[in-house]
Amino acid sequence: MGGNTFGKIFTVTTFGESHGPGVGCVIDGCPAGVPLTEEKIEHELARRKPSSVSAASTTRREADKPEILSGVFEGRTLGTPIAVLIRNQDQCSDDYAALRDVYRPGHADWTWEAKFGIRDYRGGGRSSGRETVGRVAAGAVAKAFLSKSGVSIRGWTASIAGINVPQDNGFDIDFAEGNPLRVPHREYAEKIRQKLEILRTEHDSAGGVAACSISGVPPGLGEPVFDKLDAVLAQAMLSIGAVKAVEFGSGFASAYGLGSALNDRFAPCSVPLSFLPSGAPSLKYATNNAGGILGGVSTGMSIEFRVAFKPVPSISQRQLTLDHKGDPYELSIDGRHDVCIVPRAIPVVEAMSALVLADMMLLNSINR
Amino acid sequence: MGGNTFGKIFTVTTFGESHGPGVGCVIDGCPAGVPLTEEKIEHELARRKPSSVSAASTTRREADKPEILSGVFEGRTLGTPIAVLIRNQDQCSDDYAALRDVYRPGHADWTWEAKFGIRDYRGGGRSSGRETVGRVAAGAVAKAFLSKSGVSIRGWTASIAGINVPQDNGFDIDFAEGNPLRVPHREYAEKIRQKLEILRTEHDSAGGVAACSISGVPPGLGEPVFDKLDAVLAQAMLSIGAVKAVEFGSGFASAYGLGSALNDRFAPCSVPLSFLPSGAPSLKYATNNAGGILGGVSTGMSIEFRVAFKPVPSISQRQLTLDHKGDPYELSIDGRHDVCIVPRAIPVVEAMSALVLADMMLLNSINR
Amino acid sequence: MGGNTFGKIFTVTTFGESHGPGVGCVIDGCPAGVPLTEEKIEHELARRKPSSVSAASTTRREADKPEILSGVFEGRTLGTPIAVLIRNQDQCSDDYAALRDVYRPGHADWTWEAKFGIRDYRGGGRSSGRETVGRVAAGAVAKAFLSKSGVSIRGWTASIAGINVPQDNGFDIDFAEGNPLRVPHREYAEKIRQKLEILRTEHDSAGGVAACSISGVPPGLGEPVFDKLDAVLAQAMLSIGAVKAVEFGSGFASAYGLGSALNDRFAPCSVPLSFLPSGAPSLKYATNNAGGILGGVSTGMSIEFRVAFKPVPSISQRQLTLDHKGDPYELSIDGRHDVCIVPRAIPVVEAMSALVLADMMLLNSINR
Amino acid sequence: MGGNTFGKIFTVTTFGESHGPGVGCVIDGCPAGVPLTEEKIEHELARRKPSSVSAASTTRREADKPEILSGVFEGRTLGTPIAVLIRNQDQCSDDYAALRDVYRPGHADWTWEAKFGIRDYRGGGRSSGRETVGRVAAGAVAKAFLSKSGVSIRGWTASIAGINVPQDNGFDIDFAEGNPLRVPHREYAEKIRQKLEILRTEHDSAGGVAACSISGVPPGLGEPVFDKLDAVLAQAMLSIGAVKAVEFGSGFASAYGLGSALNDRFAPCSVPLSFLPSGAPSLKYATNNAGGILGGVSTGMSIEFRVAFKPVPSISQRQLTLDHKGDPYELSIDGRHDVCIVPRAIPVVEAMSALVLADMMLLNSINR
Repeated sequence: MGGNTFGKIFTVTTFGESHGPGVGCVIDGCPAGVPLTEEKIEHELARRKPSSVSAASTTRREADKPEILSGVFEGRTLGTPIAVLIRNQDQCSDDYAALRDVYRPGHADWTWEAKFGIRDYRGGGRSSGRETVGRVAAGAVAKAFLSKSGVSIRGWTASIAGINVPQDNGFDIDFAEGNPLRVPHREYAEKIRQKLEILRTEHDSAGGVAACSISGVPPGLGEPVFDKLDAVLAQAMLSIGAVKAVEFGSGFASAYGLGSALNDRFAPCSVPLSFLPSGAPSLKYATNNAGGILGGVSTGMSIEFRVAFKPVPSISQRQLTLDHKGDPYELSIDGRHDVCIVPRAIPVVEAMSALVLADMMLLNSINR
Repeated sequence: MGGNTFGKIFTVTTFGESHGPGVGCVIDGCPAGVPLTEEKIEHELARRKPSSVSAASTTRREADKPEILSGVFEGRTLGTPIAVLIRNQDQCSDDYAALRDVYRPGHADWTWEAKFGIRDYRGGGRSSGRETVGRVAAGAVAKAFLSKSGVSIRGWTASIAGINVPQDNGFDIDFAEGNPLRVPHREYAEKIRQKLEILRTEHDSAGGVAACSISGVPPGLGEPVFDKLDAVLAQAMLSIGAVKAVEFGSGFASAYGLGSALNDRFAPCSVPLSFLPSGAPSLKYATNNAGGILGGVSTGMSIEFRVAFKPVPSISQRQLTLDHKGDPYELSIDGRHDVCIVPRAIPVVEAMSALVLADMMLLNSINR
Repeated sequence: MGGNTFGKIFTVTTFGESHGPGVGCVIDGCPAGVPLTEEKIEHELARRKPSSVSAASTTRREADKPEILSGVFEGRTLGTPIAVLIRNQDQCSDDYAALRDVYRPGHADWTWEAKFGIRDYRGGGRSSGRETVGRVAAGAVAKAFLSKSGVSIRGWTASIAGINVPQDNGFDIDFAEGNPLRVPHREYAEKIRQKLEILRTEHDSAGGVAACSISGVPPGLGEPVFDKLDAVLAQAMLSIGAVKAVEFGSGFASAYGLGSALNDRFAPCSVPLSFLPSGAPSLKYATNNAGGILGGVSTGMSIEFRVAFKPVPSISQRQLTLDHKGDPYELSIDGRHDVCIVPRAIPVVEAMSALVLADMMLLNSINR
Repeated sequence: MGGNTFGKIFTVTTFGESHGPGVGCVIDGCPAGVPLTEEKIEHELARRKPSSVSAASTTRREADKPEILSGVFEGRTLGTPIAVLIRNQDQCSDDYAALRDVYRPGHADWTWEAKFGIRDYRGGGRSSGRETVGRVAAGAVAKAFLSKSGVSIRGWTASIAGINVPQDNGFDIDFAEGNPLRVPHREYAEKIRQKLEILRTEHDSAGGVAACSISGVPPGLGEPVFDKLDAVLAQAMLSIGAVKAVEFGSGFASAYGLGSALNDRFAPCSVPLSFLPSGAPSLKYATNNAGGILGGVSTGMSIEFRVAFKPVPSISQRQLTLDHKGDPYELSIDGRHDVCIVPRAIPVVEAMSALVLADMMLLNSINR
């Protein structure tokens, strides 16, 4: 199975370069009978599009109209592969001609050339963030599948440019969806917006942290010992460009804590859990330091994780780099780039989460 | 491919429960002709064994003599599956009878029962740390394969119980191998030892951070977009019990930094790199914030990552939990448990790294 | 990995229903740098199109212009996924409205509904022969990859409607490509054409046998014990619609023979074979009862196999069948159907062979 | 996934050489809670052992006592990997020293050396028929899983040395199990026995055909388009040593027939079928030319296929061959070899069938 396919039962293969004819995906293994429309997919694609009102975003215009090429008949999935194509537009390939022979710092230009011996230099080719369009389209299908099971995935901006959004006072997850920075806090949304405006004028970029919470997950998901739920989610997150770290539940903080404090205690569960095999009792936990996963298997508590993104490497400051002959080259990336990728990456984090959950639901069904 | 198989070309399947007849692995896809002996495997297994001199360790005695059942002939691999068996000893199953109907906090007891509807309660069954014996045995084979390519993997204890080992003054990676806590610093090894002794008397446990550095990695390893080198390493690390987080290079810190500071600059490379496809120039980097991976592909710089382990959940303090009827149960885990798992997990981190690198070397060879 | 993906390194995922927007494929794992154009793909697609001059063929018109959506840049593969789309045309969905609630004998109508609970009844949906367009497109890419290695794949019609094409007198493989029935024998091409004309007037259909010969295959291909070269070729062939049997070399005849007669003898090999690992001597065989494969591994002799196709189940005679309520229904399939599928299946047999060989070449390269 | 792993959900990895320490398998993906004992596995292993009363068999003694190393607790599967080890005995490696530098005709000696550059010459190493012990052990686990679903697999000898067992008069499937040649016909069992005695005195060997019937299969099994039920069964069969062909239902005969004769008609089904998705009506077929599979998906009728085995290549006649220098060598294989492998291959055919069916049952469950 090639490196562009993800999942074991609910599998997705994505394709496409930034400035080629299009990007897209093929989902194989989605059960038959799931209601699915192009509108559902377009809705998710719209969430990752650059926003004109966002201080964080590129000004590139992407129409991103998905076309379902197969696998859906009269509004329901057929159980056959679902191919989705999104044509590229507004490509401005000429902008990139200058980059043909030069390697941008912090980008994959040279490493991919060192791997493949050839690269599509236009906008980074497949190493571009545009590749995530295929993931988001596939994630929309996964969400459609998951919708009947009650699984709900919510991502938000937890931190940008060193400004941490407080989790308590003023935290409002519903506010996140409404603002282009995906900050779940009215006051901090504005703080971060101002910070990003400053960085833009300074021709610099910022990193940040995305948080994600998955609720409604039945206990029992995850396939030890190598495909533990957190292990596969970690792969999913680190496969997103610019991600440098992931932590579950108490994460790195748990490395500094004690067992007596971090062990989550059980609590009686008044409502019987669904999806349990016969014999297993319904339980829950009083705390959730584990982030919803123990021994690689979901506990039934919400799954909580955080993903660290490095700053966008494309900055308009002059940078000294090398060209394909190894000669020095002074580079000034001019263009339509995000200052911080986190807001637009939230739908990608959610999409990858949905793909993992859909696959794990199906894999776990064999034990029923 | 089941959840107990890892890798695509160089694949390993592990098996075994803590108190069953044995644990082990089958490696399929190791090229023929690699020199391999049981002694090499035993050497790595010895590194993960509990040490009588370590304040961190359980007092369980494990002989851990590996037997190569197949795939090796006259000291060299045949290209056929290499099965390795390590029998369990000193099992003391009776110690665990009390745990038959009760769920230990922080362990996988209940989640695995919620998944499978059945569990081997003796020592946690397959969710036990003993499962990692199969990984270490397989990692020894991967290391044997990698040895001719110059790849070198070194793990060490970076932090335990809140005590961070300084990376500069006094840091001595060779010292790490010699002391049972795998601390690469004479002074801090003693500090941490004392801290763990105190925790043991307090019937508590501690988390910690393992660091790993992989040098000699050629540029070009990693299979975008889903099997990026860091993505698969992240899966590998999170698949190890008790791991809650992983970060590469600047990791979480990069989420708080700026692009102008974090972009690694290129530097001319005086010695031509091997493994490069024709046409790609030899380059290196002046800094390594990326941790040796850009766009999911190795840069040729050393790969650097850190892994957070939660505290060992087995503590001798009284803990309130629930039994299989959902009734309260006061639990006091008596037994031979590690206070901090990090020192013994270092060989596991290395083994999983070796498995990833071996697979990625083979996968990348198709582009040559 | 879903059932619509084939291969381990050189993988193809196909998609598409007969009367949906289009059919196509995504190839992942094709090495970078392979010259590839839409013309090459279109050439292979043209070979499987119904021919107006063929007595065997449907009269459906298919333009079958492939569009490469990704993975190719300036005429060479990038090492990234290669997506190819062929739009459906001339669909005449209305012709099929009558089939909405009735199950055609010999087709997959009911079994697929029994599997998925839903089906696209228009032209059989994905169970249609039109699905093979994606395979042929992918096979064209595989052929492009194989072309530099000297592997050559030739399929032909060996038998139709009980008329066996003699392998000796008058056999002319080059003649096969030139005639629409792919019969490698001028005289028998005419005999078979006349037979098919008669069957068409009788509203009946015929089965037949396709033969395939692959030359230029280096010894060593095949991945025992489950992915033996013949085993994977057998899967590839039986995955083609209407195939009911496959045999390699002496095939079923060898079940009736003696060891003393069927063992192929070795012969000295004057020219050193390429691709051999060091130490293995160059040998060949005096005969080829094995069909080029021993112990699941290629011998260096040409690979020879034969594939049996059942008669096209769509016949214009009245057939008694059942509808979705289990009630009797008298069916008369009116339409543009092939009388015998073998001639048009030859390019599909070749395409699947090419996919297998490409994958096996890459898999075997790990032993070099 | 290496070439020694088979299946997608219910997966088996086999290991072991003929004269190494042992052979065995690891099954991953078997659902939890399946009753399993070493006795069940030993029973199947006994069926493939050479029989002292069989004219067809080698006189090698194999104890073949399986040891379950993992995955079973208190008589039930845990949902974790099930490792089974069978130690080799009575190995007589010295017998094979003469074969170190010479290649036996009809065997994999040279092709495997051409692949791997190294081989275990003792008894063919992993290319030996002894490798099938791991398959039969795994098949026993698959049968245990299948037993609750009503699937029943029966194989028998259909033809040996040109003597075809009649399917009508005197055919008695229960008689097959009782006689060492697995011939389901008292009279023909004796005929074949006499023929094999003659061949043994003539130092020759014979091919034959195994037949297999799988009943109780629900409709809907098979994963189009590449993992069709017949496609995967074909791979499974061709992966068995000495197999040269497979045919389903009317098989090669259907290539010579007409559509009007071969289309199986539907028949009303009085008893509602289980496993059907809602909406799909219960139907059956009046005939079974399809061999129980249409469009790659099971029809609910019994699955019928036939497998052709070539003659055992080890014969005691003098054969001229070549050695590792390419020099001529006159070979006389002395030893304990089967005259015809079909009787002992029946349990292997059944085991591989069981593995396919178990996997397909689980894969299909996602549509429920």
